[in-house]
Amino acid sequence: MSAEARHACGLCGVVNHPSAVEMVYLGLYAQQHRGQESAGICSSDGRTIQRRAGLGLVTDALSAADLDALKNPIATGHVRYSTTGSCSDANTQPLLVRCSIGQVAVAHNGNLVNAAAIRREYEHHGHIFTSTSDTEVVLHMLADEHYARQADPLAAVLRHLLGSYCLLLHYPDRIEAVRDASGNRPLCLGRLGEAWVVASETCALDIIDAEYVRDVEPGEIVTISAGGLRSRFFAEPGRVGRAHCVFEHIYFADPSSRIFGQNVHLVRLELGRVLARESPADADLVIAVPNCARCAALGYHEASGIPIGRGFTTNHYIGRSFIQPAQSIRDLTVKLKLNPIRGSVAGKRLVVVEDSVVRGTTTRGKMNSLRAAGAREIHLRVASPPIRHPCYYGIDFPSRAELAAHNRNVEEIRQYLGVDSLAYLSLEGLLTAVHAAGDFCHACFSGQYPIPIDAAFTKDVFERRQLTFLSEAE
Amino acid sequence: MSAEARHACGLCGVVNHPSAVEMVYLGLYAQQHRGQESAGICSSDGRTIQRRAGLGLVTDALSAADLDALKNPIATGHVRYSTTGSCSDANTQPLLVRCSIGQVAVAHNGNLVNAAAIRREYEHHGHIFTSTSDTEVVLHMLADEHYARQADPLAAVLRHLLGSYCLLLHYPDRIEAVRDASGNRPLCLGRLGEAWVVASETCALDIIDAEYVRDVEPGEIVTISAGGLRSRFFAEPGRVGRAHCVFEHIYFADPSSRIFGQNVHLVRLELGRVLARESPADADLVIAVPNCARCAALGYHEASGIPIGRGFTTNHYIGRSFIQPAQSIRDLTVKLKLNPIRGSVAGKRLVVVEDSVVRGTTTRGKMNSLRAAGAREIHLRVASPPIRHPCYYGIDFPSRAELAAHNRNVEEIRQYLGVDSLAYLSLEGLLTAVHAAGDFCHACFSGQYPIPIDAAFTKDVFERRQLTFLSEAE
Amino acid sequence: MSAEARHACGLCGVVNHPSAVEMVYLGLYAQQHRGQESAGICSSDGRTIQRRAGLGLVTDALSAADLDALKNPIATGHVRYSTTGSCSDANTQPLLVRCSIGQVAVAHNGNLVNAAAIRREYEHHGHIFTSTSDTEVVLHMLADEHYARQADPLAAVLRHLLGSYCLLLHYPDRIEAVRDASGNRPLCLGRLGEAWVVASETCALDIIDAEYVRDVEPGEIVTISAGGLRSRFFAEPGRVGRAHCVFEHIYFADPSSRIFGQNVHLVRLELGRVLARESPADADLVIAVPNCARCAALGYHEASGIPIGRGFTTNHYIGRSFIQPAQSIRDLTVKLKLNPIRGSVAGKRLVVVEDSVVRGTTTRGKMNSLRAAGAREIHLRVASPPIRHPCYYGIDFPSRAELAAHNRNVEEIRQYLGVDSLAYLSLEGLLTAVHAAGDFCHACFSGQYPIPIDAAFTKDVFERRQLTFLSEAE
Amino acid sequence: MSAEARHACGLCGVVNHPSAVEMVYLGLYAQQHRGQESAGICSSDGRTIQRRAGLGLVTDALSAADLDALKNPIATGHVRYSTTGSCSDANTQPLLVRCSIGQVAVAHNGNLVNAAAIRREYEHHGHIFTSTSDTEVVLHMLADEHYARQADPLAAVLRHLLGSYCLLLHYPDRIEAVRDASGNRPLCLGRLGEAWVVASETCALDIIDAEYVRDVEPGEIVTISAGGLRSRFFAEPGRVGRAHCVFEHIYFADPSSRIFGQNVHLVRLELGRVLARESPADADLVIAVPNCARCAALGYHEASGIPIGRGFTTNHYIGRSFIQPAQSIRDLTVKLKLNPIRGSVAGKRLVVVEDSVVRGTTTRGKMNSLRAAGAREIHLRVASPPIRHPCYYGIDFPSRAELAAHNRNVEEIRQYLGVDSLAYLSLEGLLTAVHAAGDFCHACFSGQYPIPIDAAFTKDVFERRQLTFLSEAE
Repeated sequence: MSAEARHACGLCGVVNHPSAVEMVYLGLYAQQHRGQESAGICSSDGRTIQRRAGLGLVTDALSAADLDALKNPIATGHVRYSTTGSCSDANTQPLLVRCSIGQVAVAHNGNLVNAAAIRREYEHHGHIFTSTSDTEVVLHMLADEHYARQADPLAAVLRHLLGSYCLLLHYPDRIEAVRDASGNRPLCLGRLGEAWVVASETCALDIIDAEYVRDVEPGEIVTISAGGLRSRFFAEPGRVGRAHCVFEHIYFADPSSRIFGQNVHLVRLELGRVLARESPADADLVIAVPNCARCAALGYHEASGIPIGRGFTTNHYIGRSFIQPAQSIRDLTVKLKLNPIRGSVAGKRLVVVEDSVVRGTTTRGKMNSLRAAGAREIHLRVASPPIRHPCYYGIDFPSRAELAAHNRNVEEIRQYLGVDSLAYLSLEGLLTAVHAAGDFCHACFSGQYPIPIDAAFTKDVFERRQLTFLSEAE
Repeated sequence: MSAEARHACGLCGVVNHPSAVEMVYLGLYAQQHRGQESAGICSSDGRTIQRRAGLGLVTDALSAADLDALKNPIATGHVRYSTTGSCSDANTQPLLVRCSIGQVAVAHNGNLVNAAAIRREYEHHGHIFTSTSDTEVVLHMLADEHYARQADPLAAVLRHLLGSYCLLLHYPDRIEAVRDASGNRPLCLGRLGEAWVVASETCALDIIDAEYVRDVEPGEIVTISAGGLRSRFFAEPGRVGRAHCVFEHIYFADPSSRIFGQNVHLVRLELGRVLARESPADADLVIAVPNCARCAALGYHEASGIPIGRGFTTNHYIGRSFIQPAQSIRDLTVKLKLNPIRGSVAGKRLVVVEDSVVRGTTTRGKMNSLRAAGAREIHLRVASPPIRHPCYYGIDFPSRAELAAHNRNVEEIRQYLGVDSLAYLSLEGLLTAVHAAGDFCHACFSGQYPIPIDAAFTKDVFERRQLTFLSEAE
Repeated sequence: MSAEARHACGLCGVVNHPSAVEMVYLGLYAQQHRGQESAGICSSDGRTIQRRAGLGLVTDALSAADLDALKNPIATGHVRYSTTGSCSDANTQPLLVRCSIGQVAVAHNGNLVNAAAIRREYEHHGHIFTSTSDTEVVLHMLADEHYARQADPLAAVLRHLLGSYCLLLHYPDRIEAVRDASGNRPLCLGRLGEAWVVASETCALDIIDAEYVRDVEPGEIVTISAGGLRSRFFAEPGRVGRAHCVFEHIYFADPSSRIFGQNVHLVRLELGRVLARESPADADLVIAVPNCARCAALGYHEASGIPIGRGFTTNHYIGRSFIQPAQSIRDLTVKLKLNPIRGSVAGKRLVVVEDSVVRGTTTRGKMNSLRAAGAREIHLRVASPPIRHPCYYGIDFPSRAELAAHNRNVEEIRQYLGVDSLAYLSLEGLLTAVHAAGDFCHACFSGQYPIPIDAAFTKDVFERRQLTFLSEAE
Repeated sequence: MSAEARHACGLCGVVNHPSAVEMVYLGLYAQQHRGQESAGICSSDGRTIQRRAGLGLVTDALSAADLDALKNPIATGHVRYSTTGSCSDANTQPLLVRCSIGQVAVAHNGNLVNAAAIRREYEHHGHIFTSTSDTEVVLHMLADEHYARQADPLAAVLRHLLGSYCLLLHYPDRIEAVRDASGNRPLCLGRLGEAWVVASETCALDIIDAEYVRDVEPGEIVTISAGGLRSRFFAEPGRVGRAHCVFEHIYFADPSSRIFGQNVHLVRLELGRVLARESPADADLVIAVPNCARCAALGYHEASGIPIGRGFTTNHYIGRSFIQPAQSIRDLTVKLKLNPIRGSVAGKRLVVVEDSVVRGTTTRGKMNSLRAAGAREIHLRVASPPIRHPCYYGIDFPSRAELAAHNRNVEEIRQYLGVDSLAYLSLEGLLTAVHAAGDFCHACFSGQYPIPIDAAFTKDVFERRQLTFLSEAE
């Protein structure tokens, strides 16, 4: 699927470790696949929160001097998804402010569907906003006397939020780790000696040798401080149905991570197996479109008995400063990242396994390039159903009209992609691969939105609003 | 005086010119002496405001890509003073936000003495603050319904502000240029064809060949839009006494600028003449401590008849990346910027003219270095009185205890600086050099504060508060 | 094998194309795996050669301004291998000089075993050397009247060179592409319309859609100019036996490339198959140590019938600016690049396929990390024989004492690596996987050096000499 | 004169000090006015020489890591003049090579008029050249057996060199500091405890508190090693007439330096006095065109009795990254560096003192800008004669046709510059300001070339040759 959809964000927090900041840095680095636009870290010593952030990869956004300056036993960090062309300092997270309740920072993964409405109300009451992110409303609510005077102000705020969110709220002396009542995005807890770690994915625990303890539960607030862990629920468990994002298993999460109770790699293997059973092919070789579909391709191979091979080599050296060649030779450069292995694919009838197809332009290019390398037949098998609906919970698919599956049936998509046969995994097939299928959100495939959406909210309206809102640094 | 005091800030705005952004860039560049910590520009096309800003000099903080991206006919810019060691993205100006009245950006030169109190009140009502700057309260007030429903909301806000301020308020379709009722900081209007320019100093008009028109008056709001200039007063002219900062003439402003109705160079020349009359010296040669005191030294020479010479050469190549030598040879590097001209000073009885003495450590080093170059006698003449009081209106002198003149009489300062004789200009002498002496603020010398200060406000309290407030990126 | 051995270098040249420079840039980029220390390009318009070069990856070493400045129809480029810690501007290639025969530049892949002797002689005759590279002697020889007055000066020079070399000699109006008589390193010719391309590997042809024509033959000089291709031989074909570097197939070359008449991927597949036949294992899952061994692992799986899986995820975001954590948590970071997929390997009896083992330290770390992820048994299978001898022809293995196989038999290596069983591919097995086994050099495994080595030359002596020679920028 | 002529280069060497490298860094920094194109340092520990160099200012070209890596008790350094637009790594000095006599590095200030001829001869004998600099021939000669077998090879080489040169020859265990027999460029010796310092100007001694000992004599070789100083002469003292560059006093050297036996500031003061006597003016105010002419302006003021003032303020913040505004407002930016002080010059009859006029374009711009600021009359007085002849000894004046004084008499130049009166200092007047007038070269004014020039050598030929020679990185 490559870079056709914006990624989710990644969170990491460490409490009670002298190297908390370095550990968050490593934890963000391990979750870099969740966001490459910007990275930021806040840290505190119990009394004061400090912040450093920048654009780009973790290793570009934060310097050794930054880490030195932040050296404190409590730290939170955030990596933000990459968008096409625009990125802004003002939207870098964690956001840090001071208000009536003192300093507080917030890092967010997800999408608040009633953020625009809440924001409008606060603006009406004279509040000012400095970012375009939906996350900023959380801070206004926390500072709001209406919530502040309640018995549990944070719980009160959270009960008013609609949508998908994992939040790390960083106060000078603690982190409050929050997961929405539907559990849409992953959030896990780990332990390393006396220190506690919270992260979007378990791969962030692995890199620092922290032991996985459990997930933060849907509707739970976990308070992590020098005194250890305390838990409370802002939403009665089970009251709201779960709605885990199935796309995390299909594409976002790292294969080594365990999310929603299952290892991502094993789920993807199974997706490939189910796909093979649903849509067999008469072929010589299974290959993956690297790198995301490698697990699913293994599963397809296993269930089909068709040998698995390697179709491409990958160039990992491409970087920010790559110089685009002149237009005249531009079209030569489709193979910059993926070069087909002629010796492997020439004359072969191929099953090509993709994890998902969004716009289809990248997939189409890869199919052309396999064809040019001599592939005799190409049978494309996609380890997820066609994407036909927008996601309101944090995945930034392109607009509906740009989706490959928009106003096209599978045969039309096949023609568009230029392959000999095409099959998608069925929704039913997809759900057999995950435990507790009823706990998953598959709205982008099915159009069934499990989490209530503000009446006034539609993605397009929201996006248009954003664009005219505050076009800082775009 | 060198870098011992933080500088004031510099403002520039251009309306109704296709190259408004480039002109603001040049105008900031010409006012770089007013602030080297950060630089920022906002621009608008009548509907939307965009912003780019960064740390360091104008030429470092803003790239060609930034200027391209901002290309619009209305622009405002800001350079911020340099502080010792800490600087923060969050405090970069102009500040741009969105609120109930839409987008608005603000750039500020001065100091609001009731900012802390206002801020505390807004925080109490649930507002959140992202910077540590006193400027942010102005935006909260503008967004406040209390002010918004008044006949002239901006005037109502300004009437509530205490302290020293020139403000550029940038709305999508116009700039509102404001100067406080006491006229503490300079702000001038210029014209270039159909375009209008507003700037802290006239040197910003000169660099873009704009013609000086007039100053923005104390208590005046000048609205600059495609439709031209409109003026109104938020404070009845003459109701509040003027309080021009005399230190602008002594040190801050560029010699080529005209501020408060007089050319800075001519005022400094006169300061030197009065100094010579008040405190003659039996000497062979007058030299300036470059570069600030060169005008005053010319005046001293003129009035005393003592020949004028050149005592130092200046190295202009010192930069950010200069590598500090090892401690063992560190003390060799006092002459990095100023190298005494032995051939000029050896064996001479010198009158050395300084513009002002703050901490005195730099001056002391220069005197030592003249002595080592063979000066026979050093008669230090300072073209301003001893600084003994804090400034609450925008000059960031070090704390009282660090001032050379704190708890020292002139003889004790002479001993501390290691010179053969020392004389400061008298307050009376200083005031003879400016027109309308009664219109000036000289509180740093006299302790007479012409602008009311919030009862709860003292610099030290404020500073301590700032430090614990939000130590982002420090 | 990772970064334990220095890579070979990569060459690319394009003649007769208006975008020759951009095409060489892309060709170097596609061959980045052959060297990451530095990159350089020379170009000419028929009369004058220009040069740009820098340290690091192609995309870092060369800017858009460089490519603009070089815009010319003839271009050559070079990427240089990565060494541990030291790299020098003076050794960046192509080297460009002016001498009696005008301007000439040279780019070299290989190692000249009599370079030191020749150099000593030239130094004795008053010549001066500016680099530490063996390549510089070629330029001195070309400028030498002794050779210059021969019928074919270049051929005369080449006949005097001992060792391994592919050379691109860039004259203002042409490129002379040369391959040593034993054909030790690969060099191929391609065509794109009217333009000719020469490159170390065919993957450089692929990226610019050039069509593979043929290899430059051992002992051949191919002259490429606006007039097309001309060929001559400086060494009688067949007089010297071929000695293709078998390590190119095992590790260096890209799987998509065709070198020495065979596709690299297919050779590696076969290596895996032979390995499975020679050294079966009773196991549940075959995994590769990414990324190099992936082809061989597929072959092992195919021949053994043991299912193939995925053992690791790879983090591609690691960069130059990665901040090393404090020593206290340093040992946590072994998984920075490779994170084992617990769900995949836990409880499994693994066959782990490696392409080669040099020092063994990296392999050992990976085995530990699999063990920690729950692997029940680890059967390490290496798709090449133990490395026990130095390479004199361009591969920069560490010194003999540092090799894992030095003074250790296989059982001792097994203990050192901490695996349950260990088997290397036999030399015979290795040679069955390549056509014309007799045409290959396998000295690093067998100690049989097919290319004569200067009596005075030994690697150690040479290296010691280098170190004391000219320690520029180290 | 500004940047109209290329500067000379600057040299610095320190022997026998643990911080020798840092001291050379400071010494180059103090001599930055002698060259801004590139900077380099070599250091040695008695056995091996290391080198670091880069483009731009000293503080940009050399990093803290460079200085750390070079840490050694013997060091030499070089700053190279700035040229317009082109600069090349290959020409960065000191040049370091290895040859028959081992390692040797060379740093050069001056111009070798027979370099091209010598080079041609070496090329004819098969030597190769990597730079376009005339300095490289010195290394070839040192490596040449013809010279090497003489009793004093270095002296033999030097006796064969024609032109202007100060050289630092850096061998692993010592520095040989050389000044040509005519003493064209300055070179001085200083002492700091046990360490010896050699530098182009004494301002490099001052910055590190080294004590000036004496000049290196014309025709002298001073050997500086751990054992101290030894001296010998390669040219019989007095045999060749002295030919000190008078332009060093007029423009190049720092006013604080002592060169050719006199303090530069005092010479410039005297130039101004003589100029006032030769060419009085009926005027109100003397001003200097900053910064070079400030000393001469003081002298003019002193001798004429006309008051001295300040005409311009200088913006020191201009940097590499200054963004050129669009063409439409480009002409607004003439005042980027110099802004006239309207209050000082308006209505005045000015004597404007310049140090020299080369092309005249910059001077003309300044005169226009004074006129625009209201100057009533402008009487330009130039403290040197008209430049009408090329310099063959190291000053890179533009080609003859570009000189303001080419084919123009003084009246025509006056019209060209747009001033009310114009006078140059006479050659006789110039020479009265220096001791031992007969010891100076004034060829650029008089056309009398005291140092023999190779018959085949003319600047134009040489330059043309250079351009086609090796256009690396241009």
